[in-house]
Amino acid sequence: MRVAVIGASGYTGMELMRILHRHPRAEIAAVTSQQRAGQTVGDAFPALRGVVDASFEPLDPAGLVGRVDAALTCLPHATAAPVVAALREGGVTVIDISADFRLRDRAVYEAWYGPHGAPELFGSAVYGLPEVYAAEIAGASLVAAPGCYPTSALLPMLPFLRAGVVAPAPIVVDAKSGVSGAGRTLADAYLMGEHDENFYAYKVAAHRHGPEIEQEASLAAGEAATVTFVPHLLPTIRGIGATAYLRLTQPLSGAEARAILTEAYAEAPFVRVVPEGETPRLSSVRGSNFCDVGCVVDERAGLLVALGAIDNLVKGAVGQGVQCLNLAQGWPETMGLEEAPFVP
Amino acid sequence: MRVAVIGASGYTGMELMRILHRHPRAEIAAVTSQQRAGQTVGDAFPALRGVVDASFEPLDPAGLVGRVDAALTCLPHATAAPVVAALREGGVTVIDISADFRLRDRAVYEAWYGPHGAPELFGSAVYGLPEVYAAEIAGASLVAAPGCYPTSALLPMLPFLRAGVVAPAPIVVDAKSGVSGAGRTLADAYLMGEHDENFYAYKVAAHRHGPEIEQEASLAAGEAATVTFVPHLLPTIRGIGATAYLRLTQPLSGAEARAILTEAYAEAPFVRVVPEGETPRLSSVRGSNFCDVGCVVDERAGLLVALGAIDNLVKGAVGQGVQCLNLAQGWPETMGLEEAPFVP
Amino acid sequence: MRVAVIGASGYTGMELMRILHRHPRAEIAAVTSQQRAGQTVGDAFPALRGVVDASFEPLDPAGLVGRVDAALTCLPHATAAPVVAALREGGVTVIDISADFRLRDRAVYEAWYGPHGAPELFGSAVYGLPEVYAAEIAGASLVAAPGCYPTSALLPMLPFLRAGVVAPAPIVVDAKSGVSGAGRTLADAYLMGEHDENFYAYKVAAHRHGPEIEQEASLAAGEAATVTFVPHLLPTIRGIGATAYLRLTQPLSGAEARAILTEAYAEAPFVRVVPEGETPRLSSVRGSNFCDVGCVVDERAGLLVALGAIDNLVKGAVGQGVQCLNLAQGWPETMGLEEAPFVP
Amino acid sequence: MRVAVIGASGYTGMELMRILHRHPRAEIAAVTSQQRAGQTVGDAFPALRGVVDASFEPLDPAGLVGRVDAALTCLPHATAAPVVAALREGGVTVIDISADFRLRDRAVYEAWYGPHGAPELFGSAVYGLPEVYAAEIAGASLVAAPGCYPTSALLPMLPFLRAGVVAPAPIVVDAKSGVSGAGRTLADAYLMGEHDENFYAYKVAAHRHGPEIEQEASLAAGEAATVTFVPHLLPTIRGIGATAYLRLTQPLSGAEARAILTEAYAEAPFVRVVPEGETPRLSSVRGSNFCDVGCVVDERAGLLVALGAIDNLVKGAVGQGVQCLNLAQGWPETMGLEEAPFVP
Repeated sequence: MRVAVIGASGYTGMELMRILHRHPRAEIAAVTSQQRAGQTVGDAFPALRGVVDASFEPLDPAGLVGRVDAALTCLPHATAAPVVAALREGGVTVIDISADFRLRDRAVYEAWYGPHGAPELFGSAVYGLPEVYAAEIAGASLVAAPGCYPTSALLPMLPFLRAGVVAPAPIVVDAKSGVSGAGRTLADAYLMGEHDENFYAYKVAAHRHGPEIEQEASLAAGEAATVTFVPHLLPTIRGIGATAYLRLTQPLSGAEARAILTEAYAEAPFVRVVPEGETPRLSSVRGSNFCDVGCVVDERAGLLVALGAIDNLVKGAVGQGVQCLNLAQGWPETMGLEEAPFVP
Repeated sequence: MRVAVIGASGYTGMELMRILHRHPRAEIAAVTSQQRAGQTVGDAFPALRGVVDASFEPLDPAGLVGRVDAALTCLPHATAAPVVAALREGGVTVIDISADFRLRDRAVYEAWYGPHGAPELFGSAVYGLPEVYAAEIAGASLVAAPGCYPTSALLPMLPFLRAGVVAPAPIVVDAKSGVSGAGRTLADAYLMGEHDENFYAYKVAAHRHGPEIEQEASLAAGEAATVTFVPHLLPTIRGIGATAYLRLTQPLSGAEARAILTEAYAEAPFVRVVPEGETPRLSSVRGSNFCDVGCVVDERAGLLVALGAIDNLVKGAVGQGVQCLNLAQGWPETMGLEEAPFVP
Repeated sequence: MRVAVIGASGYTGMELMRILHRHPRAEIAAVTSQQRAGQTVGDAFPALRGVVDASFEPLDPAGLVGRVDAALTCLPHATAAPVVAALREGGVTVIDISADFRLRDRAVYEAWYGPHGAPELFGSAVYGLPEVYAAEIAGASLVAAPGCYPTSALLPMLPFLRAGVVAPAPIVVDAKSGVSGAGRTLADAYLMGEHDENFYAYKVAAHRHGPEIEQEASLAAGEAATVTFVPHLLPTIRGIGATAYLRLTQPLSGAEARAILTEAYAEAPFVRVVPEGETPRLSSVRGSNFCDVGCVVDERAGLLVALGAIDNLVKGAVGQGVQCLNLAQGWPETMGLEEAPFVP
Repeated sequence: MRVAVIGASGYTGMELMRILHRHPRAEIAAVTSQQRAGQTVGDAFPALRGVVDASFEPLDPAGLVGRVDAALTCLPHATAAPVVAALREGGVTVIDISADFRLRDRAVYEAWYGPHGAPELFGSAVYGLPEVYAAEIAGASLVAAPGCYPTSALLPMLPFLRAGVVAPAPIVVDAKSGVSGAGRTLADAYLMGEHDENFYAYKVAAHRHGPEIEQEASLAAGEAATVTFVPHLLPTIRGIGATAYLRLTQPLSGAEARAILTEAYAEAPFVRVVPEGETPRLSSVRGSNFCDVGCVVDERAGLLVALGAIDNLVKGAVGQGVQCLNLAQGWPETMGLEEAPFVP
């Protein structure tokens, strides 16, 4: 299958090339970058010299039609939508890594992201969280891969919301991301001299991934959820750790809680429930498509603590995108994603 | 004043020597270390060669009586108590950096730490959080410096609990510490190869600093608080960031919340309230005795988010200890602690 | 092919499991660890849970005979030799990652490492640097994979020594390694609190890899080389960068120097010569079996600067080991090693 | 004394404010920044909020005359010279941290830096390496503080060149710097995502600090030195480690070599000779004005290895600048610079 990497010069684009390079069925047929157009991939990114043999081309969605069968769009929100529309019009299967097709409520989208760039397509995408929507993703031609923070928070929380053992409001999600979550953004804050040995919260209860988490939490609970989402920046390159706090609606032992998780993910190849006494760690998932999840019950406080860890560029972005592509094509879900975590 | 550094070969001991080195009134009169006894400070720690001119001696509390006027005890919990007792018996003023004298309820102490090593002194120490107990610390001869996590969490939360605008239960404290919080402990988990680029929660709702936070939160609220305390390890050497989530008991605007903080710390030389739009950062407090605090109101969820950042070795340990010593002696509170934060 | 990972609980052992997991022809048939015997790989290393389905067994070389066809020995020097001997006696093909069979002169070995543990085998191994000894490795049953530092230094230097354009003495090799080069060694120096933000030289002109570099430099030059080898420790987990300084014996332009490198490695799948204006970077080789090499001529000083970068755990250890296994078995040299570098 | 910090919004400027904040005789009378003009220091750098009470003003050298007695100019090379000239004309004592007045040969300056911005002053500054030029610095009104790399390399090498026990050519200096050496420069290469866990050489034998090292090495040797200078970038915020390789002109034991260093720096308060078996480490000098130096003789190769470690922002820049100011004013050399190294 001929696949285009749209927006290939950012961190998610690079990671996607790394993954497609080892995918047995998908072949990199085009890589686009406005900024690097004309350069070879190897000249732009010496790590990929001799690995990915391609040159960046300027983004021309219409021109890709006929040359590629599928595309993964690694573009900033708002700029992705019209590109997706053009590709879809030409019959190209699209896995969109941006935020443009994740939300179901257009008013919510526009409140957080501004006017939508392809309103006619709004609402037509499948939310690409395979552990929840595998059936809908199968055969889909437009999939919106979830945000990195939502993936890390939803996977540990959803089984409890679905089981009705926790209340959908108020939910607290305290999440921490490595710097690659901001992409290769040139800003003082992301310089090594500022970011290393540092840590802080940002966009407290005001981050765009909040409504996305709320949407899926509500769907799982069957009623409106309220999520206070507080992201923080970690001095790492990769990884997200999410710790969620939910109010128990009934007594629940730690073993019962763990059983809910274990059962929920019994068939999920990329979700690992950590055993009692362990917690999800960034080092255990780095470079892989795994999401490690765990839970602890604080009986005294009547709270459930749900924990998740992912590699934000893989399970939080393009790894999940490829997982969706596999499902959409009817290929084995894990194809091209068998890589072991990168430790140490 | 002649001061002993008890347990000088750990990270808090080293930091204390760094601070006392520039303190105009306190002089390092003895440094003890079982493990390094006989070595010079400079041979053990090349960084301090030519800076601290002293040799480690084995710990002999009785032998210190008469040679020193005050001691800061940087020992593991349980081992500190008998040493403190011996020093106090000899009339030495003690600032205890361990956990042995922080709790008011002996049953709670013993549930978390085991039998107390100096039961006759239990309950006789002042809790050394100067922003709350300055009056009690003045003239005190036994001060228990608060834990690192409690300092980072209590300073941003207490003003709201005292003002009665938030409920004392349930409170969530999600805290993140650099690796020096574990001391110079030889364990796989703290090796650079395991810890760098890593992040995870540990002792979820089961860490010893939980009851300490609960004790002070309860005192501030005037009723029993319930705190779900979840610590995490950051891939930094120093620093703690704490994010606390409290339920509002009444409508409160962001400006009103900030005003509560600002007023509470108007006279506190080491607490800085960050302006609207900023959050406390590890990089702004590193190497200093500052605690930066901030708050955000999530009106939709009815939650107050309170944030704090400290250097765990300074404001979270021996800097706070020296601040207490200053107050106990009637010296200016900031003496020897004027150092600017270490940036970049 | 059934392969044993001997000494599987160290960093090289873990990396080897990661690589064999994706190798199409080699299957992990046994993993040994004295320290972890009885544990599953997944319990010992949560990253590999659900990836490598095996349990550590105590090391019993005789017991492996018949169960495995090949073994990679990731043991400390001196302890490896008798294990290798037992495996060879049973007809098992061995790729030894230790230092026990790298040197050709037994007196040199014993001066640096002490008595040899299998003297009857001394001298019978092929030095496993495929870019030099591919012909000898083909069909070999005992291969000694080169040290990490020697690999990083020899690949950029050897073509110049072979071409006779530089003198074999004095050569300076200034090399810098990430902390995983020390293995998972529990020592103060490797704690995150000591090692992060740190850098220093160690074993200056007194490191065991010095004579190994000298041996191969001498063979390439056709006369005795003298190498001053100075290793340093970097605050990274992985990677070695080596900068070598060699005296030109004749005028040589930068372009001529680069041509020597380019020609030498025209057929080498894992050596990339960086273009003019670039230098080898750890970030370009991390996680891969690549060695990036480069060179600069300092005409004024009459010196050639040769630079190399590798991932010490891959091309500097088990990746090279698997490359040797491939060659020994007559498989494609790159089999199982096609992974793209891990960036960012 | 009223001191201006010229170019206060870079890393050296910030560090200078940190140091002057604790200097008993120098008071920050003006801080300039084109980019931050109008902002308070605290708003620009939250770390300094409540510490440095000043606002950035646009750079107007003439306007500073009369308001300040001395200035430290932390400006990029070429832009510094005309500012220095204007300040000197007004009688202001200047310690220039830029490269504009370090070189003695104007042709060399112009070859590396372009046309000089104040040719009438060229050659009139004292080279501010106090361990060599203390007598000349005393009473000087224009001092050129040495570059960071030259400081780290010259201090360990010069005593041997002066003693005539090593040849002035060829000398190899292999140096490694933390990222703050590049200032707060917004470039992809300095982003956390690119720089962390990375390491590489740059400007191989083509860095501007090469001729500066050569100048001082020649003066010490009494004949023309040739230095091959190869800088590398470390994944740290601060620190430089330099390893220099010099050819012995006569047999010299390790003890004799160490004695040469020890004697040379017997009276130097900021140079510490590490004992036998130790090497200079970044962690031992971080945040301090120390330069730790050491040496090892490789008898076999006839080479002397000289090692140095500094904090590039302190001894490599403004700490050394303040040391020069102290000497120029006749104050104690260590005034305001007594801070212990920042460990861990």
